[in-house]
Amino acid sequence: MAGTSPAMTMVSMTTPFSFRLIKTDGAARLGEFVTPHGRVSTPAFMPVGTQATVKGMTPEMVGATGAEIVLGNTYHLMLRPGAERVAALGGLHKFMNWPGPILTDSGGFQVMSLSGLRKLEEKGVTFRSHLDGAMFELTPERSIEIQLLLGADIVMQLDECLKLPATAAEIERAMQLSLRWAERSKRAFGQAPVGHALFGIVQGGDNAPLRLQSARGLIGIGFDGYAIGGLAVGEPQEVMLSIVREVAPALPADRPRYLMGVGTPEDILEAVARGVDMFDCVLPTRNGRHGLAFSRFGPINLKNARHADDVRPLDAESACPAARDYSRAYLHHLMKANEMLGAILLTSINLHYYQDLTRGMREAIAEGRFADFRVQTKAGWAARADIVEGP
Amino acid sequence: MAGTSPAMTMVSMTTPFSFRLIKTDGAARLGEFVTPHGRVSTPAFMPVGTQATVKGMTPEMVGATGAEIVLGNTYHLMLRPGAERVAALGGLHKFMNWPGPILTDSGGFQVMSLSGLRKLEEKGVTFRSHLDGAMFELTPERSIEIQLLLGADIVMQLDECLKLPATAAEIERAMQLSLRWAERSKRAFGQAPVGHALFGIVQGGDNAPLRLQSARGLIGIGFDGYAIGGLAVGEPQEVMLSIVREVAPALPADRPRYLMGVGTPEDILEAVARGVDMFDCVLPTRNGRHGLAFSRFGPINLKNARHADDVRPLDAESACPAARDYSRAYLHHLMKANEMLGAILLTSINLHYYQDLTRGMREAIAEGRFADFRVQTKAGWAARADIVEGP
Repeated sequence: MAGTSPAMTMVSMTTPFSFRLIKTDGAARLGEFVTPHGRVSTPAFMPVGTQATVKGMTPEMVGATGAEIVLGNTYHLMLRPGAERVAALGGLHKFMNWPGPILTDSGGFQVMSLSGLRKLEEKGVTFRSHLDGAMFELTPERSIEIQLLLGADIVMQLDECLKLPATAAEIERAMQLSLRWAERSKRAFGQAPVGHALFGIVQGGDNAPLRLQSARGLIGIGFDGYAIGGLAVGEPQEVMLSIVREVAPALPADRPRYLMGVGTPEDILEAVARGVDMFDCVLPTRNGRHGLAFSRFGPINLKNARHADDVRPLDAESACPAARDYSRAYLHHLMKANEMLGAILLTSINLHYYQDLTRGMREAIAEGRFADFRVQTKAGWAARADIVEGP
Repeated sequence: MAGTSPAMTMVSMTTPFSFRLIKTDGAARLGEFVTPHGRVSTPAFMPVGTQATVKGMTPEMVGATGAEIVLGNTYHLMLRPGAERVAALGGLHKFMNWPGPILTDSGGFQVMSLSGLRKLEEKGVTFRSHLDGAMFELTPERSIEIQLLLGADIVMQLDECLKLPATAAEIERAMQLSLRWAERSKRAFGQAPVGHALFGIVQGGDNAPLRLQSARGLIGIGFDGYAIGGLAVGEPQEVMLSIVREVAPALPADRPRYLMGVGTPEDILEAVARGVDMFDCVLPTRNGRHGLAFSRFGPINLKNARHADDVRPLDAESACPAARDYSRAYLHHLMKANEMLGAILLTSINLHYYQDLTRGMREAIAEGRFADFRVQTKAGWAARADIVEGP
């Protein structure tokens, strides 16, 4: 499926991408970015729609959780159904019936974590599809082409994402390669129509000087936004947060900052406290499918037998209907009976909770009480009210 | 889990069950029944909510298809989560968050088809749970007790449901046993609070004289409605329809008639033409999960590769958003990628189609044009417009 010119099939978009920093409270930032498919308030959490669907959710359900932007995975979509096919069908927004903004990743992370027989070269990476073993090549230029074919509002540069721990030499090599790929990505993106935004990705593992070198290199090239990649790949939370604390202030204040693949509610709260604006993670959807609910009271495992006779809803005060309208006993029953509705309701509850959390942070920053919000939110998780208060 | 008195936990319901025959057109009937949880227009199709959920659907989604009543399975619910537990949690309506009417079956059919090591006696049936091998007993009295604990609006008598083909002697034995169980069910139901309705079940296999003997016996006992059971169990469609044609006119005109476990859209259309009012079947939900859509154009298998580039929706003129808002290519992609949303959308599309079909029949009967509706509907299925009209 090669050879179609992106220019022939690309969705035309006319609103230029822009970001506005509205207010800061300590290092925490309240902002907003505008895309051809709508505005997004930051701090923002982006549900993951790997295969052109947020697993278990209709687009209406995703929107009802408060999500304003979703993420699509270039690796999965290039393999199935194929970027040229999605473009011929009108682009990813139309394909998955999601009218809001979409960010696509570059495919690099999944090539490393999912595909077999990779060959990494200066030019790009050659890999076997995990679906059928077919060979594919992904270069910085092809990654940009795919993302433009999909019609992404925010396009990510191809990078090399190492697993941690890794040696300093290995980290530096991958960081430098990612910088050269960043330059090629910027060049390839040059002819993209107005509206699409391109983000660079800071690499450098757990090495702060290399991270800062990566950030300076990217700023020199110039991007619409800056991501911090290669974290949440096995390192302890304090390592991740210390890198974020080093890198975030080194990034331009007038561009959005995106911490890729992060994380738990606490990770997100702490990263916002260090100046990050955007997040994506499979945790709320994946854990929901496995019976784990995120809540004001911390995580609740609905598979646990103690819920079997519990008539209380998950959170009577939640804005999420699924958290209010069903008993814990029913959610437990659905998980035990392996019913799809269990995954549907818990995914909805979790995405809602992540959106409530980012909305709460936005309101707190706007009112200059982010520090209080942070303390109170963590106290709520620690209190585990669901366990101490019996029915 | 025995010993709790139903009277202690039962949901109180005050509206008595009633049925009104509004109009006939040939043998086809337009009617309405009233339950404590709302009205149901007939002909009616009841989505199957086996384990206290219509698979892959929220209750709101089920309601949005036009469904006015759902079915719950006594066999599954008595095993997990247990009838006494559901009663303690406020009854099945509250448990599954479905505010409308619920019909529960008696458990007899699933005991025969799903459980192991059955012992059938005059008293009832003893069986091993398919979940954990635990022994259970189901008698006519216990089946009524369970269904009242669940809080069903319509309760079914316990019957013995044979697989066909079977010998005449075997069919007669099972039919006579079912009649004696019908009497015991009526007696056990005697103290049920106002609002619940009890239906008897005509048995007799493919033997018309035995069927009529069963019907007469049941009418002598007296029920709020009459079901035709033991069909759609392997016999050809013409055998099923010929039994329906014999039995339906022998049933009281002022009571609803329910053909259990049926069927395809054509089965339902033909059974309504022979005087049946109510149906339930797993086909729209089960086939939806496997990629088969029911439509005005007949069945469409979305797994077929010919849909991979088809930008057309399943049915642009459908009242179902899922049939209008997604391309066939996208539905195909979801099924190939084994994404839950494929099952969700196709289940929704199918339940919507079944409701459209019964609504179409009701309107046609009201306007005295049922015969035309029947011919035109079957012509639509035969034309297979989806295949002959390319994109």
